[in-house]
Amino acid sequence: MNIEMIRAARARLDGHVRRTPLLNSPSLDAVAGRRVWVKAECLQHTGSFKLRGGWSAISAMEPALRARGVIAFSSGNHAQGVALAAARHGAPAVIIMPDDAPRAKIDATRALGAEVVLYDRARDDRDAICARISADRDLTLIRPFDDAWVIAGQATCGLEIAEQARDEGITRADVLVCCGGGGFSSGVALALEAEAPGLRVRPVEPEEFDDMARSLRSGVIERNERLSGSLCDAIITPQPGAMTFPILSRLAGPGMVVTEDQALHAMALAFSGLKLVAEPGGAVALAAALFHGDEIEGDDVIVTISGGNVDATVFRTALERFGG
Amino acid sequence: MNIEMIRAARARLDGHVRRTPLLNSPSLDAVAGRRVWVKAECLQHTGSFKLRGGWSAISAMEPALRARGVIAFSSGNHAQGVALAAARHGAPAVIIMPDDAPRAKIDATRALGAEVVLYDRARDDRDAICARISADRDLTLIRPFDDAWVIAGQATCGLEIAEQARDEGITRADVLVCCGGGGFSSGVALALEAEAPGLRVRPVEPEEFDDMARSLRSGVIERNERLSGSLCDAIITPQPGAMTFPILSRLAGPGMVVTEDQALHAMALAFSGLKLVAEPGGAVALAAALFHGDEIEGDDVIVTISGGNVDATVFRTALERFGG
Repeated sequence: MNIEMIRAARARLDGHVRRTPLLNSPSLDAVAGRRVWVKAECLQHTGSFKLRGGWSAISAMEPALRARGVIAFSSGNHAQGVALAAARHGAPAVIIMPDDAPRAKIDATRALGAEVVLYDRARDDRDAICARISADRDLTLIRPFDDAWVIAGQATCGLEIAEQARDEGITRADVLVCCGGGGFSSGVALALEAEAPGLRVRPVEPEEFDDMARSLRSGVIERNERLSGSLCDAIITPQPGAMTFPILSRLAGPGMVVTEDQALHAMALAFSGLKLVAEPGGAVALAAALFHGDEIEGDDVIVTISGGNVDATVFRTALERFGG
Repeated sequence: MNIEMIRAARARLDGHVRRTPLLNSPSLDAVAGRRVWVKAECLQHTGSFKLRGGWSAISAMEPALRARGVIAFSSGNHAQGVALAAARHGAPAVIIMPDDAPRAKIDATRALGAEVVLYDRARDDRDAICARISADRDLTLIRPFDDAWVIAGQATCGLEIAEQARDEGITRADVLVCCGGGGFSSGVALALEAEAPGLRVRPVEPEEFDDMARSLRSGVIERNERLSGSLCDAIITPQPGAMTFPILSRLAGPGMVVTEDQALHAMALAFSGLKLVAEPGGAVALAAALFHGDEIEGDDVIVTISGGNVDATVFRTALERFGG
């Protein structure tokens, strides 16, 4: 992994992946007590940053291998990113999804032309299902985060943040990134190391699923006790990645942790202040900026809204409870 | 009004007004039966295109006059546009708003530093209130649409549409614009006439408030019977403007009319497909593209989402009824 690999990913993504805007709003600044800059990856094609990594990996594949097809497992955002990238490259895609994934994500993945295989989180062995299908059909696995091509793709968002921060005159700030396995956080951290060394990534997770924050604190990879039962489905992973954790250990600041309620509250404030739809897992970084300002220093903070693929019922709940 | 005045407005707006993205989504295309391109003015500062016109008018004022202050009447979007532009120019602003305007809009206008004066639509004479205050305090009225500087400001959105359509390879298409008094529609039409003559504006209004569509059909200015009672508060005006109507008579295609339910349905589809928050009046153009496709020709249609300042309760209703 180096900056040249990230720049090469950017060239492959050019014209296929949106350069999402960096937005701000006086109402969010007032709550946070500092300027809050929001990288709106919910406006990315497929509704999350995951298209970047999917496109990067699939566009880098040897064409004959790619033509045989790809396989991925995901609760929904990586699923859609891989499905769209595969479809645009003419490659078949099989996506293994938990049957309790948000309905909107399952439907959207199918609409992008992928074959969706559902499994039961409690009863089935996802990895075994995946291994069997990929062996049977000679499919290439596109990992959600522990893959250099995927990390390089997510890192292109970091290149954009570096440029956009420079345009706004921001030279020193924490960059809060919604964190599951750490692919997005570590990619952004690598890009910022090269292009904006005054910006520092801080991974943000939901309470009870704070494996990255604990691992960064202890210096060794720690696991989550639970693997389901969170509205923040997009960023629930068993543990930090073997590739992503060393990158974040070297480059990231301390992890931050927010409650599910804080994520829902942040969704309501993104609705009113930014006119953006964030999903719970995509709103944790904004929640950290808004409600954990005492853990941040400086006049500016940059946050990612990493995805907006949320069922209408969950969004209505957020507005009902926190929408004023 | 000419293209030089519009280009001059763009120069004054540069750095203060966002260049909003032109977005698309396969799910919207599937409903519409053609490619739908969405100019996301809900992402503009203050949540609507109105900042463009407000900034254009206030930035063009003679400084001594501007320092005395400005006044405007508005149900909320023009209010916020004028309030922000005035604040950034160090000018006091008084905004006359109906007391049944959405709470979010009244609060946001106050938060921008303006003095808000509420009136009762049924009992009070808005124009008399406005005239008295502006005379007492020597304030300059910033009209919502029938003003050359304001139209030139809204037209800057048309310059962006022309460029963005060119980038997407779109040379011929209807451009559906949410229409109240016609300031946005006529400004966009003037910009497209100069920069993208294959693109044609079509104003879109809600049922029972279709004064512009009827006026374009008959060739003379016609009034609405009612002036309240619509969720589309942002685009309810008594009649087309004296300046805007001749421009649209010359340049616009036939007006389109949608129901309030169709506007709510379009809001739900913008939520799921684009991750954008649209207000009812800001969603009528998208509704026309989605549900009145038989009145449109061609493979592409461009629509504005002109604003996103909607109370949470109304948005929840849209999701509850149409959010799946």
